[in-house]
This record gives sequence, C-alpha cells and structure tokens, in this order.
Amino acid sequence: MTEYRETANLSLGRRNLLKGVVVTAAASAWTTASVSRTAAQPLERATNFDPSAIKVLLFDVQGTTVDFYATIVRRGESITSAHGIQADWTAIVDQWRSEYRRRLDQVIAGTSPWRSTDRIFRESLDALLESHDWGQKLDSDERDKLTAVWSQLEPWPDSVPGLERLSKKYTLSTLSNGSMASVVSIAKLGRLPFDCILTAELVQSSKPDPKVYALAQNAFAVRPDQILMVACHKYDLKAAKALGFRVAFVPRPLEFGPRGKVDLAPESYFDLMPKDFIDLADQMGA
Amino acid sequence: MTEYRETANLSLGRRNLLKGVVVTAAASAWTTASVSRTAAQPLERATNFDPSAIKVLLFDVQGTTVDFYATIVRRGESITSAHGIQADWTAIVDQWRSEYRRRLDQVIAGTSPWRSTDRIFRESLDALLESHDWGQKLDSDERDKLTAVWSQLEPWPDSVPGLERLSKKYTLSTLSNGSMASVVSIAKLGRLPFDCILTAELVQSSKPDPKVYALAQNAFAVRPDQILMVACHKYDLKAAKALGFRVAFVPRPLEFGPRGKVDLAPESYFDLMPKDFIDLADQMGA
Repeated sequence: MTEYRETANLSLGRRNLLKGVVVTAAASAWTTASVSRTAAQPLERATNFDPSAIKVLLFDVQGTTVDFYATIVRRGESITSAHGIQADWTAIVDQWRSEYRRRLDQVIAGTSPWRSTDRIFRESLDALLESHDWGQKLDSDERDKLTAVWSQLEPWPDSVPGLERLSKKYTLSTLSNGSMASVVSIAKLGRLPFDCILTAELVQSSKPDPKVYALAQNAFAVRPDQILMVACHKYDLKAAKALGFRVAFVPRPLEFGPRGKVDLAPESYFDLMPKDFIDLADQMGA
Repeated sequence: MTEYRETANLSLGRRNLLKGVVVTAAASAWTTASVSRTAAQPLERATNFDPSAIKVLLFDVQGTTVDFYATIVRRGESITSAHGIQADWTAIVDQWRSEYRRRLDQVIAGTSPWRSTDRIFRESLDALLESHDWGQKLDSDERDKLTAVWSQLEPWPDSVPGLERLSKKYTLSTLSNGSMASVVSIAKLGRLPFDCILTAELVQSSKPDPKVYALAQNAFAVRPDQILMVACHKYDLKAAKALGFRVAFVPRPLEFGPRGKVDLAPESYFDLMPKDFIDLADQMGA
C-alpha cells in the first residue's frame, strides 16, 4: 500500500510542522470512552482493503467535510463588528466549541436531558457571552443569527469535487452528531452531493455510541464491511471499526485553525488515510 | 383561488374519463383508519394558504413522485420474457401491490412483526408466484432482481423539473413508507433533487401513523404549518392535515395504470391541488 505510506508520511510531516504530538481535550475524552468500550476486542489491523467491496460511504461533517473554524471566525467577526464590537473570534470559536462539547458530554453521560445540538450551541453561546463584557450588547435575534452559522458551515475546498466523483460510484451519506436541520442546511448551502442525511439525532444519541452506526447500517441494509466511515476524528473511526466498518482517516490539520492542535498520527487500524476527499476518490477508484 | 378550481375541474374531468367515483380497497382501508383517528377534530378548511409561510416540502414517493406501475410492468416483463415466460404483468403488479398492502397492514395492526418494506415486497412476490404455474422457474436470484425493481422506480416526467425549481426556494424531503435503502436508491437513480430522505422505517412504522409525520417535523425543527405534505393519496394528506401540516394533493390518474381506479375528487381540506409538480412549483412561486 504505497499510497497509504506516502500519505502517512505527509501527515507526519504536517504534524511536525504543527509542533508536537497533540490530541485535543475533546478528542481525548472520546478516545478514552471508545477504548474502554472496545478493550476486549482489539481493532482489526487494516491489511487487505478492497474498495470494490464498499457500497456506502459515511461522512462525518463538522471538521471532516466542512471547515467550522474559518466559517465561525469570519461570520462571527462580521456580526459583532456590525455592532461596533471588537471580539477575538479565534478565541471565541475555541471557547464555544469546548463549552458545546462539555454540555454534549453531559447529555451523553445521561446527567443532562437530551436536546438537539442546535439548542446546545445556543445555550453554550449564552454561557460564553457572560464572560465577555460586550456580551450583553447582543440580543436574542443576534444570538440566533450567530448560532445559525453552525447550520451554514462551508465545505473544505476538496469536499465538493471529491464527493462529486465518489457519488458516481457509491452511495454517500452523512453520519454526523449535528442536528438533522443543521446538516441538511449545510449540505444544501454547500451543494454537497450526499444521497442521504443521517445524524445521531435520529436515535437521540451521539457518536461514538454504537446505536448511531447501527442506524446507518440498518438504513442501507448492508453488511458492516460494506461501509466506509470517513472522518478526521479517531474516536469516530475507532467506534466504527469496532463494529466491523471499514474506516478512512482524512487529516484536517487546520480543523482548529492555524494554532490548533490535532492528532494526525496514522494508526494501524486505518484502512485508508487519503490526504483529502479528492485523494479518497482516487483511492476508491471513483 | 382560481388555479385551485381549474385544477379541480380538470381532475373531475379525468375522473369521469376513468369512469366513476372510485376508491381503491387499500386507500379505503387507510381512509377508515384515518377518519376514526381524527373523528373528534374535523380537518381545517383550506382558506388562506400562503406559500411564503412554508419552509419544507415533504413528498410521498411511490405513486406521487415515481410511477411504480409502468416501471414494474416494463421491467418485470423484461425479466420473465428472458426466461421464455409469457406473463401478464399488468395483473401481476396489482396482485403484488395488494399482497404487499395486506402484509403491511398486518404489520401496522401489530399482528405481524415489523420488517422493512423491501422484505415485505420479497415475501409478497414469493406468495404470488405460487399462484402462477411458471412461478417455480424463477430462482432466488431472479426473485431478488424482481424485488430490486421497487428500488429503481422511475419518476413521472414532471417530477425532476418540478423538484429542481422547488429546490431553489424550499427544503425538499421524502416522507415515504418505502425502506430507507429503496428511497435513497430511487432518488439517486432518478436524480431527484431531495435535500433529505426520510422514511417511516426510521421510526419502524408507516404513514398514516402520526409518529412518521412527527419524525419529519422534529428533523426540520419547524412548526407544522411550515410544512407542506405533497401526495396523491388522501389517507396521507388527511393524517398530515390533522397534525396541522399544509397539504397539496397531486392527482396521479395513472397510478394504477390505464385501467386502474383512483380517487381524484377534490376535498375541502386540500390547501393546493396542482395538476403535477411543475404546476406545484408555479403555485409555490418557485
């Protein structure tokens, strides 16, 4: 698998550029949960991956398919500066995402009632604005407008061309932790050619809960090894792999912005590690 | 509402051509169920429908968006004639659909366990082939191939152009009793520009169960009166209207073929009665 090694080396190079072996706090929490779930059965080593055995590709959305960081920073700045507010959106996007993650984890742990991710994003915004003295200048409508940006996240440049090629040969679906409404909106605005929108909301849960992956397998009525899960987050791929899915890790070194920390190290259980969706289309023969 | 009356008259004309005021057995069973469910609250009279209040259009698929009758007759004939079998597919499609309906009704009544509609179509085929002496000539693979045609149903000629126009202004989703796999396949093969595929399978039920409509309302996080349900079956529209959805009846006089019996009579609770999807796009200002 020459392509795999080349891509892996490229990613290692990028990781070094980003200075250090790094895992975000959120990803590490997920990893722990996933590892404890699958401790009894080690993940299958990826040896003989055959693209022609795959029928359905499932895509994570936030981070993997769309660039939430750049979209939130740019659109957030535009909304606050219209109110004469000087705000550091590179800090706010981190704060917002981590407050969201904290609340979502409470929902998953069952210590907080289930609600849609749109609602959690809005609650998290209200909470974070309390720590900014200009926060009170933003009324409910402006807060709704800011929260709506999570339903308008823009694709990475390779996403649409890669998906268009893959769509000619495979069935493509999302498998996202975002709400149905937000992922439908993101796909429509971004002209992402998905054949189906599936999100964890349909089973009132979140990845890496096996229920979410089972939803997809049932919906397409295929065997787990006929599905390729595509994501830039290892917790997602680990959970999918433990259920027998094939997995492709697409590194997104800029997921958390130019100063962000992401874990790009290759893992033995990856079936593919394309450098982006166009490379994924190449490797899938599409 | 001039357009409404014109369309209604046209439909009455078509109904007369088809000789008689007629309701299929299946539709009448549904109607009864639906009426008893909503007997306490009469359906709201459609008076002041405002297209600009609508955000999401939901489409029934089999019959409303695609022409199952012509597809099954043509593809079925092609498969059996390849085996040297002379079969009357205009009769078989009726038999198949009614056997399917009978079994689906048992599932809905809870007297038979839940299973996907793909499975029910295959069981129904096996049952109906017992009444044809050539039935034994078709092995399991051929029966799979015949059943798969229900995942390859072709759009009515107005469906794609109408949906393409509507897609520029509204969010479009299916709300079908077909399986997820079959509706995704139908949409992909037919290039139907839906933004989302929703089917009753996601809640292991069938229209007109209110749970199915609630699935759609929750997925899009809108009020019921921001949704327009589009179907050629009154049981479907009645159930949607009882929940506060707006409804558009699209007559499909050829749903059961040229000799088929369909109920095309206008009803006071219809918000729109466009003659096809292109007329629907006109009336929705798209």
